[in-house]
Amino acid sequence: MSKKKHHARKQRARRPGTAPGTLRSIEAPPGAATRITVIDYGPDSIDEKVVGSIEEVFAYRDSPTVTWINIEGLHDVEMIRKLGAQFNFHPLALEDVLNCNQRPKVEDYGDYHFLVMKSVHLREELAIEQISFFMAGNYVITLQEEAGDSFEAVRERIRQGKGLIRKSGPDYLTYALLDALIDEFFPVLEVYGERIEDLEQELLLSPSARTLQTIHQIKRELLLLRRAGWPEREVVNGLQRAEADFIQAQTQVFLRDCYDHTIQVIDMIETYRDLASGMQEVYLSSISNRMNEIMKVLTIISTIFIPLSFVAGVYGMNFNPQSSPLNMPELNWFWGYPTALGIMAVIAGVLLYFFRRKGWV
Amino acid sequence: MSKKKHHARKQRARRPGTAPGTLRSIEAPPGAATRITVIDYGPDSIDEKVVGSIEEVFAYRDSPTVTWINIEGLHDVEMIRKLGAQFNFHPLALEDVLNCNQRPKVEDYGDYHFLVMKSVHLREELAIEQISFFMAGNYVITLQEEAGDSFEAVRERIRQGKGLIRKSGPDYLTYALLDALIDEFFPVLEVYGERIEDLEQELLLSPSARTLQTIHQIKRELLLLRRAGWPEREVVNGLQRAEADFIQAQTQVFLRDCYDHTIQVIDMIETYRDLASGMQEVYLSSISNRMNEIMKVLTIISTIFIPLSFVAGVYGMNFNPQSSPLNMPELNWFWGYPTALGIMAVIAGVLLYFFRRKGWV
Amino acid sequence: MSKKKHHARKQRARRPGTAPGTLRSIEAPPGAATRITVIDYGPDSIDEKVVGSIEEVFAYRDSPTVTWINIEGLHDVEMIRKLGAQFNFHPLALEDVLNCNQRPKVEDYGDYHFLVMKSVHLREELAIEQISFFMAGNYVITLQEEAGDSFEAVRERIRQGKGLIRKSGPDYLTYALLDALIDEFFPVLEVYGERIEDLEQELLLSPSARTLQTIHQIKRELLLLRRAGWPEREVVNGLQRAEADFIQAQTQVFLRDCYDHTIQVIDMIETYRDLASGMQEVYLSSISNRMNEIMKVLTIISTIFIPLSFVAGVYGMNFNPQSSPLNMPELNWFWGYPTALGIMAVIAGVLLYFFRRKGWV
Amino acid sequence: MSKKKHHARKQRARRPGTAPGTLRSIEAPPGAATRITVIDYGPDSIDEKVVGSIEEVFAYRDSPTVTWINIEGLHDVEMIRKLGAQFNFHPLALEDVLNCNQRPKVEDYGDYHFLVMKSVHLREELAIEQISFFMAGNYVITLQEEAGDSFEAVRERIRQGKGLIRKSGPDYLTYALLDALIDEFFPVLEVYGERIEDLEQELLLSPSARTLQTIHQIKRELLLLRRAGWPEREVVNGLQRAEADFIQAQTQVFLRDCYDHTIQVIDMIETYRDLASGMQEVYLSSISNRMNEIMKVLTIISTIFIPLSFVAGVYGMNFNPQSSPLNMPELNWFWGYPTALGIMAVIAGVLLYFFRRKGWV
Amino acid sequence: MSKKKHHARKQRARRPGTAPGTLRSIEAPPGAATRITVIDYGPDSIDEKVVGSIEEVFAYRDSPTVTWINIEGLHDVEMIRKLGAQFNFHPLALEDVLNCNQRPKVEDYGDYHFLVMKSVHLREELAIEQISFFMAGNYVITLQEEAGDSFEAVRERIRQGKGLIRKSGPDYLTYALLDALIDEFFPVLEVYGERIEDLEQELLLSPSARTLQTIHQIKRELLLLRRAGWPEREVVNGLQRAEADFIQAQTQVFLRDCYDHTIQVIDMIETYRDLASGMQEVYLSSISNRMNEIMKVLTIISTIFIPLSFVAGVYGMNFNPQSSPLNMPELNWFWGYPTALGIMAVIAGVLLYFFRRKGWV
Repeated sequence: MSKKKHHARKQRARRPGTAPGTLRSIEAPPGAATRITVIDYGPDSIDEKVVGSIEEVFAYRDSPTVTWINIEGLHDVEMIRKLGAQFNFHPLALEDVLNCNQRPKVEDYGDYHFLVMKSVHLREELAIEQISFFMAGNYVITLQEEAGDSFEAVRERIRQGKGLIRKSGPDYLTYALLDALIDEFFPVLEVYGERIEDLEQELLLSPSARTLQTIHQIKRELLLLRRAGWPEREVVNGLQRAEADFIQAQTQVFLRDCYDHTIQVIDMIETYRDLASGMQEVYLSSISNRMNEIMKVLTIISTIFIPLSFVAGVYGMNFNPQSSPLNMPELNWFWGYPTALGIMAVIAGVLLYFFRRKGWV
Repeated sequence: MSKKKHHARKQRARRPGTAPGTLRSIEAPPGAATRITVIDYGPDSIDEKVVGSIEEVFAYRDSPTVTWINIEGLHDVEMIRKLGAQFNFHPLALEDVLNCNQRPKVEDYGDYHFLVMKSVHLREELAIEQISFFMAGNYVITLQEEAGDSFEAVRERIRQGKGLIRKSGPDYLTYALLDALIDEFFPVLEVYGERIEDLEQELLLSPSARTLQTIHQIKRELLLLRRAGWPEREVVNGLQRAEADFIQAQTQVFLRDCYDHTIQVIDMIETYRDLASGMQEVYLSSISNRMNEIMKVLTIISTIFIPLSFVAGVYGMNFNPQSSPLNMPELNWFWGYPTALGIMAVIAGVLLYFFRRKGWV
Repeated sequence: MSKKKHHARKQRARRPGTAPGTLRSIEAPPGAATRITVIDYGPDSIDEKVVGSIEEVFAYRDSPTVTWINIEGLHDVEMIRKLGAQFNFHPLALEDVLNCNQRPKVEDYGDYHFLVMKSVHLREELAIEQISFFMAGNYVITLQEEAGDSFEAVRERIRQGKGLIRKSGPDYLTYALLDALIDEFFPVLEVYGERIEDLEQELLLSPSARTLQTIHQIKRELLLLRRAGWPEREVVNGLQRAEADFIQAQTQVFLRDCYDHTIQVIDMIETYRDLASGMQEVYLSSISNRMNEIMKVLTIISTIFIPLSFVAGVYGMNFNPQSSPLNMPELNWFWGYPTALGIMAVIAGVLLYFFRRKGWV
Repeated sequence: MSKKKHHARKQRARRPGTAPGTLRSIEAPPGAATRITVIDYGPDSIDEKVVGSIEEVFAYRDSPTVTWINIEGLHDVEMIRKLGAQFNFHPLALEDVLNCNQRPKVEDYGDYHFLVMKSVHLREELAIEQISFFMAGNYVITLQEEAGDSFEAVRERIRQGKGLIRKSGPDYLTYALLDALIDEFFPVLEVYGERIEDLEQELLLSPSARTLQTIHQIKRELLLLRRAGWPEREVVNGLQRAEADFIQAQTQVFLRDCYDHTIQVIDMIETYRDLASGMQEVYLSSISNRMNEIMKVLTIISTIFIPLSFVAGVYGMNFNPQSSPLNMPELNWFWGYPTALGIMAVIAGVLLYFFRRKGWV
Repeated sequence: MSKKKHHARKQRARRPGTAPGTLRSIEAPPGAATRITVIDYGPDSIDEKVVGSIEEVFAYRDSPTVTWINIEGLHDVEMIRKLGAQFNFHPLALEDVLNCNQRPKVEDYGDYHFLVMKSVHLREELAIEQISFFMAGNYVITLQEEAGDSFEAVRERIRQGKGLIRKSGPDYLTYALLDALIDEFFPVLEVYGERIEDLEQELLLSPSARTLQTIHQIKRELLLLRRAGWPEREVVNGLQRAEADFIQAQTQVFLRDCYDHTIQVIDMIETYRDLASGMQEVYLSSISNRMNEIMKVLTIISTIFIPLSFVAGVYGMNFNPQSSPLNMPELNWFWGYPTALGIMAVIAGVLLYFFRRKGWV
């Protein structure tokens, strides 16, 4: 279950009272390595490379061209510390980079903006990864918990130099990356939409205890998506209203579009949550209905045959007709047996008529 | 089911990281063709025609008269691209035109406003179609997913030249079109109102499992209407507060009226949702009630006859009275059988009295 | 049911795309006639009359004294059109007068204010009627769907000339009329309060399926009252903040009081809704309780007698003791019958003890 | 029940259309008399007396010292009218004094502030009484529905002259009185807290139908407290922001503290409401659980013995073995009876094993 | 249960009408003593000591270095009074220190700020302790209900002199202490997260009545955490916006981070509440499911065997075949017994087929 995954990834909470800015490493999955890629570009040039050590990126701090430094894998605390020291990042921001339970947010640290976002994927199960951004006038640094390909399409756009991306600054690059992250929600939500549709069919045809488990699971995962989605809206909104001079007017239009997408994401999440809750209600009442039907059959059969069996029981008593004329003379009557059967038939008929009138048959 | 429809129409989400402004075609229903109509009018003149290619409308971009260009069918991406290039529309707006899952919205692009609205119809089932608007100082362009007649009445008003429409600018035309779209909600909601009323009757007289399915279906569809209705209120509100010089003061009054209608739409949707939820509760408790009644009958019949059958069973035992005076001497008593029947009658009477006191009979 | 009424009264929604300001007549109840009354008054004078045709009121448009024109019955569209033309009312306002599904609202049209309010009555059933106001510097025009007496008390106050009403302008008159309409809620709500109290008694003593129907009906009607009440609060609030020079400072105090009343109305409606929901929950759980009790009796009787009957059944078998010493030798034992009865008694005792320990007896 | 009380006290709603400021008397409990006490004090002096007629307090209207006039019992309308006339109170305020269903509120009438508050007590049952305040630069007038001792502690503080009260003006006196009223909530809420705790114990040990009634009753009464508490927060907040020159800066600190108390009151009410709702859910599911257990016992006993009885029934049939070798030859078998008992034992064993595997035994 | 604890700790509400600033002692646990520690530090110096009497701390009121006075145990009212008198604290603040049911809050008293916070721990059970702060330009005084170690880590940081703490003022110290308190939530919430996970497993595998009790208990305790957490967000927010000149710009960044943590705390609490509610729903429906299954088995067994027993009962009747040819001639038929058994088999077969078609078998 996806729950497992999230918990395996979850860090212990930091010890209360710890000094702010204390960096704690993220436990690495076995065999994980840190991978640092640098793309430095301008309208006419592009330089893309994988670097071996963090020191190689320090030169880009003051280069005039736009530099995008992407770091995948955060278990090397020392590297993060060096990066922070060189670029003058606030210890609190660095701490947030390494605390992978952050809510998405944007913070203005003057020289640079610090952003926390989430990347959502549905591999075998829902996986939510944290991605941090440092955005300044001439660079964007992205830090990902683990290797992933959320940004490959953006990288391709830079390489091909189509559109505005090569002609614009780090603000547009940030927009493009945010947009890529937010657009990741849509295919995931589509899968949930299809699951809900399938469940509605299942609900109509053959509801089972498993159906409810699945609905509950979907609600749980939508709750996780919601926790990621809502604050991302605020992040984009915050960027739109940021008073940084390195966010150009032209980028505002694109951020507005990106904001629209976050609203659409939230709208879909909420709709699916509503649908899932509705299904849960339908499930519960379909169980009640089914119980009703079962009870009806039981009642009809029981209430018809119990009185009949009683009559049969009476004439199965062994009172001795010979010791008294009052003792079950019916047993020796000529019409005894047909009469008894007749009484039974009448009882059954009356009861059936009663049930029909009640609308149970 | 309406769900089917929506999904058939739904596009796959665009690939995350795709460049903004990437235009994707809308899958056309078989046999669909694009239809472009132009109405160019002023207080004293009107020129209406169907044009064969998008190039024919380019001339109207700078004409001083009011031009309404209506395009039905959006699967020809190339045509949209040309239109956008000629009229200088922002790529993001064009992308939204072709992405038919947009939420209704209004965006100010300076020279023109871009609006997304929804057209709602109830043919065999609820159909929600997206309609985009480009509104500038001398033209309005509307783009519809598929051929429809939402605007026929407005077209007729232009032709007849009654009222303000011919004397006013594109702002009034936009208002008239928005108003037509919003008024489409009312007949649809009336149908839901009637369905709810019918269901309330059904609920009182003969609730069935199907009743609940129908309530659930209505709630689902009201949810879809709600998703369309709420943001349309914001669209009209946004237009009212827009600081475009081509929206005249006189039109404000009409937009206020239109805003009132959206509030009324939302109010009706919410009321119907409340009513539907109320019905669901009544349904569930009527099921409980019915179960109760069934149980009561079962209990009464069973609890009366089970002890009686036991008595009959006792006297149906085959203990040999001849082998011992203690073995069922009752069988040979003179008053044996009447006594046994009497005991049964007493038991039945006591139980009936108990049930009556409990209020179950 | 009240629902019937509302629907008989409901107009079809206007055709989407219809020109704004299109007037549609309200279907008149059989035998209905339009009644126009005029009261023209000043501190020292009063002139009250019933006029036969709408033209007779035109003269009051420019009279310096305060004039209250009250029109009951709105099925004569032509009359409304004439009135609007003479007093220069906006077509949208006139359209709203004739569309009796409006939400209460206040609109500033410059020279005059247009108000929509609701009059609530509980004759045999809940009746909600729409009343429109045109308020200007020297007149108030009220238009009622049908003949009613909501304003009789105000009329009497004008006649008697007590209090401020004769000394004040149309703003105070409007306040007095609004206040009369809002105060109509209180007796209606009192009836609902009493019904809820009665239902709580009924719920404790003898809940039935009808109880739930009644709770549901009350919730429905409170929903309708709520729809009328909430926007009326906004109307009074809107008037308080209106920047019209014909609303005097002195009237503000009274409007504030009136606003308080609307809050009180809403407060009562919400409280009653909460109480009704609470009752519904109590009802449902009292059904569960009752079901439990029934099940308990069934279980106790059944589980005691079913084993006993089994024992009786065993000794009712006809195995032939003569064909084998193993075949039911008990039947010929001296203590056979008493032993069988003893076994039964022990079984019954053990079960009763078990039930007592479970707390079921 | 507390409901009774509230209704006995409730006035009929005033007739719609009645002139504003119409004073209606409050029905007096038998034997009730109006009691007027006056405390006139300054830093160094104090004069406390009970006066016989309202005229005796008129002199204090213009006295420079702080005067607190407390009137208990409001059924003498004439007295209220005289008071209002002498002190120049607005008729609407006077009307509110006598309408004991007011929501708590504060109104600025220029020369004086008018406040409505509630006094809550839990004698045998929850009693909510209305207390009105007129606060001006040199006096505070409090009007209580009936005799009560909410203010005795404040009176004592004035007499003893400790603290700020004697050195401050009517603003501090008002604060002290408001604070006394708000602090009345705490002991009442403590009782509810204890009741909820007791109910939780009861819920765990021996839930009964009465438990639910009590939960429902508590929810009802918390609803009433909530209706009183929420607007009182607004009253204190309103006073804090009032721009009256007779509210001194120093008093603001105390009003802030008082505001804190109202928040705490609301917080407790909401928490208790949540707890009560939670208990209701637990109650309902404990009923379901219990039903389940009962059903389980019934099912086990029935499903084991019904088949056994059937077997016994078969061998209780009277087919004549002598008329055919096929007719129940088992009856004459040597091992007939033991075989039949063996079959029964096997059936019982299989069923028990099945139930054990299901986890029902 | 944790409830017990809270109630043992709870003080009686103060008597309504009591003078503001009345100090009431907190009942001390047996053997409790007040412990006063002082840490006086600057960038280069540190002086830490435990003092025996409150008078020893008075000297620090005007010392230029930063002084942190920590008082554990509040049952010595006289000591608090002396402290307040010496440092000139407002009586209302002192009263709040001793009233341990305060909501977290921050109040600006000009010279100093007064804060109320909560310390949360999960020893055997959830324990919530109140901690008050007085923060001025050169000192911070913390007052704790009972001895605790929430601040030990901060103390250690001061001793070691690492980071900013020794170089900053009381504002940073306050931040560090607040941060320590807020970070205490995380380990507590982690435990709840694990409990919820365990319960979800339990819910799937073996739900019992105890499961529901535990869910309810968790919801209760989350409610308590929520009551503590929400207002703490406001406290940090309030400090961020405080206009005190002793809160330096540099500290603002840290307070923003602290604010983020409070949001994260609330976010987790709300998510866990949602999960707990979801589990409750799943629990209830799993009970319904189980009931259904039980009913199904009962119904199948009963409805098959009841008719069969009836047939057996009929042929167990003792009508005398010799007294009439109509009296049960079947008993003497050659194929009598096999026919009867055959009829039974057919009945059983038909019913089983019916159940299979219903999907019950």
